[in-house]
Amino acid sequence: MATSAPPAQKRARAGRPPTLAAPRERILEEAAKLFARSGYDGSSVADLAAAIGASKAAIYHYYPTKQDIYDAIILEVLNGLTQAVGREVAAADGGAARLRAFMVGHARYFEQHHAEFVTMLIGYSGMALSEREDAARLRDGYEKRLREVIAQGVADGAFRALDVAATGRAVLSMLNWMVRWYRPGQGDSAEAIAAGYFDLLVGGMRP
Amino acid sequence: MATSAPPAQKRARAGRPPTLAAPRERILEEAAKLFARSGYDGSSVADLAAAIGASKAAIYHYYPTKQDIYDAIILEVLNGLTQAVGREVAAADGGAARLRAFMVGHARYFEQHHAEFVTMLIGYSGMALSEREDAARLRDGYEKRLREVIAQGVADGAFRALDVAATGRAVLSMLNWMVRWYRPGQGDSAEAIAAGYFDLLVGGMRP
Repeated sequence: MATSAPPAQKRARAGRPPTLAAPRERILEEAAKLFARSGYDGSSVADLAAAIGASKAAIYHYYPTKQDIYDAIILEVLNGLTQAVGREVAAADGGAARLRAFMVGHARYFEQHHAEFVTMLIGYSGMALSEREDAARLRDGYEKRLREVIAQGVADGAFRALDVAATGRAVLSMLNWMVRWYRPGQGDSAEAIAAGYFDLLVGGMRP
Repeated sequence: MATSAPPAQKRARAGRPPTLAAPRERILEEAAKLFARSGYDGSSVADLAAAIGASKAAIYHYYPTKQDIYDAIILEVLNGLTQAVGREVAAADGGAARLRAFMVGHARYFEQHHAEFVTMLIGYSGMALSEREDAARLRDGYEKRLREVIAQGVADGAFRALDVAATGRAVLSMLNWMVRWYRPGQGDSAEAIAAGYFDLLVGGMRP
């Protein structure tokens, strides 16, 4: 998402910054916190303006509607996740190490972008049609990458001949459900939990 | 939830049933479908009345507020799940068979009460305070039962000495995430998917 220079802001008041630094990033970051806390329907652009200390007009300059803000958050987190996890997977060798890199990398990105994940997976309100297709494409690509990693592990003998699609779904279920119970900064790190899930899945429960 | 006799309904119109048969069950069932489809905030008692073919007053006779209906759905599904899965687990022998009974029983109940599960896990809007405590108690009891099953499997030698709490969480994550992607009547049954998850978790991914 390109960031254009902030516009000269009209009617700037004393005590408020006359312009937003890195305005798009700031808007999306604060909006994600709001959506994660109060849901999409429970959050207004007025709430967002108050949280940022800017006018509603300043926000509408960058994002014409609340829906645009929501869609931008989802696309940004899906893009960022795909890229971050893709790098970690590419740096690992062999199917088993790559699956671990996928799971731990996913959990790290989740912990670092917690509000955005909660917005995406809980505060869900439906995206505008064209953005929904972009998001579906990113999500499918991400799951496809995971299946390739698992298939590679089967091919290189690290894993048994298992149902690659069902196994990928099991992996993503464990990781995604963390939005429902995990609180950053409390207890184990998300990475440690994902590493434990990897050990459980790969090692199995049998003695 | 006791069912009292339906009240004589005032202003019954031609083409509409003058009374609700099994009114509480019918209200909760239709409300769960509405909440699952449109979310809590997106559903009104007027929508519900239209879906049932009753007056709003008839609904308010049984449940004074929309919140009461929502809370009753959650408590009913948590109670029903606990009882159904408890019976299946008790009928199985040994830790491994009991874990399988837990997972498959959970999935069966989920498939049979799909709208109620979606309401509970996606259409979430927060319960009234006292009912929230009842729900938390039921949820904790359910997770505790699962941990006992896993601990029994460790004790009887079916499972290795694993982290019982983390394993229980992994099991519930896989089962609960099904609300996000599973569509009853399309593809494998929920039971078959849960049985696959059991085989994956117990057998592990190694050859």
